[in-house]
Amino acid sequence: MNGKKVVVVGAGPVGSLAALYAASRGAAVEVYELRSDLRNADTTPLNFTKSINLALSERGINALRSTGNNELLETVLEQTIPMHGRMIHTRSATGSLTEQSQLYDVHGRFQRSVDRGVLNGVLLNHLDSLPNVTLHFQHKMTGADFRKRRAWFEITDRTDSSHPNRPREIEVDFNLLIGADGAHSTTRYHMMKYARMNYHQEYIDCLWCEFTMPPTQSGDFAISPNHLHIWPAGSFMFIALPNLDKSFVCTLFGPVEMFVHLEDSPDAELVAFFDKHFPGVTNHIPPSDLIAQFKRNPHLPLINIKCSPHHFGDSVVILGDAANAMVPFYGQGMNAGMESVRVLFSKLDAIADRTAALASYTEERTKDAHVVADLALGNYIEMRSSVTSRLYKLRKYIEERLDKYVPSLGWATQYSRISFSNMRYSEVIKHSQRQKRILTAVLLAMAAAVFTGPAAALWLYVLRHSQHRRRILYLMIQEVKW
Amino acid sequence: MNGKKVVVVGAGPVGSLAALYAASRGAAVEVYELRSDLRNADTTPLNFTKSINLALSERGINALRSTGNNELLETVLEQTIPMHGRMIHTRSATGSLTEQSQLYDVHGRFQRSVDRGVLNGVLLNHLDSLPNVTLHFQHKMTGADFRKRRAWFEITDRTDSSHPNRPREIEVDFNLLIGADGAHSTTRYHMMKYARMNYHQEYIDCLWCEFTMPPTQSGDFAISPNHLHIWPAGSFMFIALPNLDKSFVCTLFGPVEMFVHLEDSPDAELVAFFDKHFPGVTNHIPPSDLIAQFKRNPHLPLINIKCSPHHFGDSVVILGDAANAMVPFYGQGMNAGMESVRVLFSKLDAIADRTAALASYTEERTKDAHVVADLALGNYIEMRSSVTSRLYKLRKYIEERLDKYVPSLGWATQYSRISFSNMRYSEVIKHSQRQKRILTAVLLAMAAAVFTGPAAALWLYVLRHSQHRRRILYLMIQEVKW
Repeated sequence: MNGKKVVVVGAGPVGSLAALYAASRGAAVEVYELRSDLRNADTTPLNFTKSINLALSERGINALRSTGNNELLETVLEQTIPMHGRMIHTRSATGSLTEQSQLYDVHGRFQRSVDRGVLNGVLLNHLDSLPNVTLHFQHKMTGADFRKRRAWFEITDRTDSSHPNRPREIEVDFNLLIGADGAHSTTRYHMMKYARMNYHQEYIDCLWCEFTMPPTQSGDFAISPNHLHIWPAGSFMFIALPNLDKSFVCTLFGPVEMFVHLEDSPDAELVAFFDKHFPGVTNHIPPSDLIAQFKRNPHLPLINIKCSPHHFGDSVVILGDAANAMVPFYGQGMNAGMESVRVLFSKLDAIADRTAALASYTEERTKDAHVVADLALGNYIEMRSSVTSRLYKLRKYIEERLDKYVPSLGWATQYSRISFSNMRYSEVIKHSQRQKRILTAVLLAMAAAVFTGPAAALWLYVLRHSQHRRRILYLMIQEVKW
Repeated sequence: MNGKKVVVVGAGPVGSLAALYAASRGAAVEVYELRSDLRNADTTPLNFTKSINLALSERGINALRSTGNNELLETVLEQTIPMHGRMIHTRSATGSLTEQSQLYDVHGRFQRSVDRGVLNGVLLNHLDSLPNVTLHFQHKMTGADFRKRRAWFEITDRTDSSHPNRPREIEVDFNLLIGADGAHSTTRYHMMKYARMNYHQEYIDCLWCEFTMPPTQSGDFAISPNHLHIWPAGSFMFIALPNLDKSFVCTLFGPVEMFVHLEDSPDAELVAFFDKHFPGVTNHIPPSDLIAQFKRNPHLPLINIKCSPHHFGDSVVILGDAANAMVPFYGQGMNAGMESVRVLFSKLDAIADRTAALASYTEERTKDAHVVADLALGNYIEMRSSVTSRLYKLRKYIEERLDKYVPSLGWATQYSRISFSNMRYSEVIKHSQRQKRILTAVLLAMAAAVFTGPAAALWLYVLRHSQHRRRILYLMIQEVKW
């Protein structure tokens, strides 16, 4: 990398981090971003087109840590809010509001709520301070030749009257171009003309709309600040993540049909819908505000992207949403993108031949990217409904006890391996499948013993006297059904 | 359409035909094509990046016929060469060359070999003669806003010194934009920013390279002009289609690994490979020429594209390879594209609301497009190996006899329905599946009768005395194995 010219397309969190990695290896780095500098007060915020708040977890933190710049990591972490678990909001049979906290991790590890703009700003400020990095905003990629290593950018800022004769389009050459320009990546589009890329994109039947839950009149958080709040409702859900200004960024997720119904209904219907399915929300977001936000904020789709390869030759590689956009339900989109930066540079550090390094990156990362995209889709079902199932909770309980009290087993929940470890996603899924097979076998054996073995009498005794008998019975029935 | 402005992107056979359909309905049509006018002698031919010869069959012909312009249809048909069947080239056990003709259709219907440039030229000449059509070559689409109905094109012909002040980029507005700009469609790329498009593209493990088989020294066709010639060889094959100048355009298809092996081998290996697998070819393409062509002509990939929807709102629709590129093994790529034009305009004619017409088009056509893409993939296996199997030939024989002698059954081979009818692709596959179930059941019943019934003695007699006993036994074994 030393002395090489690296062009990074996209100055979001993933692109900025990639620029930082390249710069720390001595490359001459140029970053080109379609939008204006988000640090300028007059830049239209990304709000309502990209989600404002993100969950930063181990993989993202590890990618920051691996820059070796502790100060940078600390600056980011200082501006996050710990979320120790999910707070599940439901209404009890008697109609009262109930909140149930489910801790994320038996070892006390937690998610962090972070503002996309704050994280991005910290990274950009750091890039600004580096002599071998230049940032170019309002530069729209118009073309690229990945054999000749040239790319073209249109300068879209035509308001700069101090340079009336500035060229409209510039040509940029490079040794390596890193495309971190999002789900609708222009880099990927041009790369597809060179690489034989298998590419799949699918919109899932789910839209989302953001809401803001303001602080209370006394200026405090309206609900617990250290949780990711979920109102699960079967095929749809409402969630809330805390902000530093003591507001919450909330998101309504649901099938297209649900949105169409709400859009076509009178205003009162929206409020009734919230009161029915998301109990308590209108205590914190006044109905008139709720209606106004639903009308004002866009109703946006969710896309799932898988592709392979992620590179072409030794001249271009794509990262983050450009390579594997996923639905947001595992909170892994940005974390996976930042981890990709770490993995990419570990390959470039270890393998001298860049073509081989990029090929090795593609081989490892496409596999992991496909796994986490599928996990994210699966977690939609978990969040919007499974979290309330007794079987789900019992399984979580058993797995966490095994993790905590028999650490030699190496047992851990899938959630904790995804969110709080740096194990490859594809390895996580192997471990989870193995654990599931073992648990199921043990439970089936228990069920068999109950119904057939000499221990029947003992089991009957346990069932009669245990306070957990309903749980145990329920579990046995579920396992037998499988 | 009358008085509406229709912009067509891409002036290939499908785009040109779409322009013609729109023009005949009174639209003001503007066609924008990235490349130079292929009718100019100095335009680099598409040879070797797109296949030169195509099989024109009923769906393409019907789309031409439905313009109502018989003269145009006749002009095209006059410049085609009928191919009545496949000629299968193999080497017999004794090492001699054998040719076996398999007629395409029991009713005498046939495929037509047509030069892409000739067909395209006829359509363009006709468009030139229409007062409400303008053709714009060397115009590269750079962007589109499908809500505001505007598109931008860069004029890439900078050699025209008579217009030194001509703008570099023009803005074009439209009522409807039709994107027929190929597998790497720019229209589709921009449409994907508006429509929630599910999109899948996959490269299959097969490359292709074109060869020319010259006429004989006496100026005649080297092999039968009225066949599509196939040299099947298991996992790869060589084919040849006749040209009007009495040469053949030939194509080698094979797995990437095979190409890599041949590229890395000494020249003699290529000739030995051909002599082993494609017997007789080097009698017609001299070895030195074969080697030179293999080195000179590119080795190109094959892509399979499925997407949905094919339109956005009432402002844009994509057609042909842009919407469903398929592998060439059913000879349906261009025919399906031309059929799409016919179906599109039948919807626009029948449904006054254009949004509804385009939605109806997408609903019908995505289904058919997916079916024919899968059929084309499946036919690769048929062409390169099944054509030589006895079971395949027996099945074809039975189905064709049923079609010919018991027409009331409505029996027909899948091939004839695809190539010689206008039945929807999705209906064809339903009929084929039904026929396959019936044939299998009948043959199974026959097999059961042989082994268990009182007819056993009779069957044994037939088996002992029939000259087809090996066929019958082979068939029974195959059917039972299924």
